[in-house]
Amino acid sequence: MIRQQVNQNGLLTPMRTADSPMRICNFQISLETTNAPEFIDITDQVLDSIAESGVTMGNVLVYSKHTTAAIKINEMEPLLLEDMARTLEHIAPRDADYRHNDFTVRTVNMNEDECPNGHSHCSHLMLGTSETIPIIDGELQLGQYQSVFMIELDHPRDREVLISVIGA
Amino acid sequence: MIRQQVNQNGLLTPMRTADSPMRICNFQISLETTNAPEFIDITDQVLDSIAESGVTMGNVLVYSKHTTAAIKINEMEPLLLEDMARTLEHIAPRDADYRHNDFTVRTVNMNEDECPNGHSHCSHLMLGTSETIPIIDGELQLGQYQSVFMIELDHPRDREVLISVIGA
Amino acid sequence: MIRQQVNQNGLLTPMRTADSPMRICNFQISLETTNAPEFIDITDQVLDSIAESGVTMGNVLVYSKHTTAAIKINEMEPLLLEDMARTLEHIAPRDADYRHNDFTVRTVNMNEDECPNGHSHCSHLMLGTSETIPIIDGELQLGQYQSVFMIELDHPRDREVLISVIGA
Repeated sequence: MIRQQVNQNGLLTPMRTADSPMRICNFQISLETTNAPEFIDITDQVLDSIAESGVTMGNVLVYSKHTTAAIKINEMEPLLLEDMARTLEHIAPRDADYRHNDFTVRTVNMNEDECPNGHSHCSHLMLGTSETIPIIDGELQLGQYQSVFMIELDHPRDREVLISVIGA
Repeated sequence: MIRQQVNQNGLLTPMRTADSPMRICNFQISLETTNAPEFIDITDQVLDSIAESGVTMGNVLVYSKHTTAAIKINEMEPLLLEDMARTLEHIAPRDADYRHNDFTVRTVNMNEDECPNGHSHCSHLMLGTSETIPIIDGELQLGQYQSVFMIELDHPRDREVLISVIGA
Repeated sequence: MIRQQVNQNGLLTPMRTADSPMRICNFQISLETTNAPEFIDITDQVLDSIAESGVTMGNVLVYSKHTTAAIKINEMEPLLLEDMARTLEHIAPRDADYRHNDFTVRTVNMNEDECPNGHSHCSHLMLGTSETIPIIDGELQLGQYQSVFMIELDHPRDREVLISVIGA
């Protein structure tokens, strides 16, 4: 059953509308991961970015610049993070055979410090690169149990996350 | 083969451009779920929100405030919904062992009415929290077989979905 | 460890801010797929759209109008694409039983050229319909190894992808 918030005309009622000039503010955070998979709660950094931007109505895009580090919203409960790590291992086992890990035949994007990380890319494919969250009346619209995570899927390293706030 | 729409200069041709002042309109819908997993088609509510907003060029963000209820676009075909439920069960079986479900050791976010829902969180991790869809010339750009679903992954309960329309 | 970029006040420093009037430019590309799964790199088309739009600060939404063709960011490495195809087959095997493929009982959305594609929909559910990427100082913020793919999950056919650029 869907209960819409309705006005007297039987239509959806806008909760809030902003018509003032819009702005875009971009922030970057650097993270140093220490484990894999590792779930790093970056909710505070997202909140700080919104406060700093001055945007009170709009949305925020949280974006990973990596193909083996994902952005996801879920619950910050330590035991659950272990469950999610096990689900990822189930979907793309670290020790399975990946052609990407066969450095004897691979020719593309080979670096000096190349590590076998086929499983990291395949997990990332299922997770994703970004999340977008509404901002209403200056409040980031995370639900009670929602936190924003950067998830390290590869071996520990330096990572960059962009936070882009758009709105009025 | 990629066939771009090209103009006389050999570049991509914009289909439409809007330069007028932008606005943001936010809507909320409340849903009462009755099953799990349950796929609830909320396409009509998204369409109503866009009509109400007056935005004819922009995009709409459909956002779940929950870590065990997802937003996804797929086809509204009843038998397919059964297939998708089975795929979710395959990825994160309801009866598998989840540390999140061990209430004898867990200390974080424990509520009176806590239910074992580790599988719901792990499914949600693979699905996602939101979808963003373009609006062009007043038309939501859903393809012929695309519907917007809120997917209940946990036990039936009340849910909140935000619909945020941005554009001109 | 999270290292924020901080200013003298100890707050996050905006990398860039744009306050000028915003615009929205929409582009469409048509693709003819030849295999399944097939990963088609559409990064150049996204870059062309941004250049054509004139937007230097904002973001771009890349959107598939299909329920069996996904948009995903990952690494363009041919052997890895084979690994990702195998992961998809693991999650939603092509030859498993899908009720959506039982044309003797199915009544909804049946077409003359209906093919059994339950696996395509179930893979799509795990992948997704769109990606959103920040644009800063005229540069699409893809990381070194990030490419944008349209992924054909069903049998080869014509596909439409929308590219919507918003910003200043």
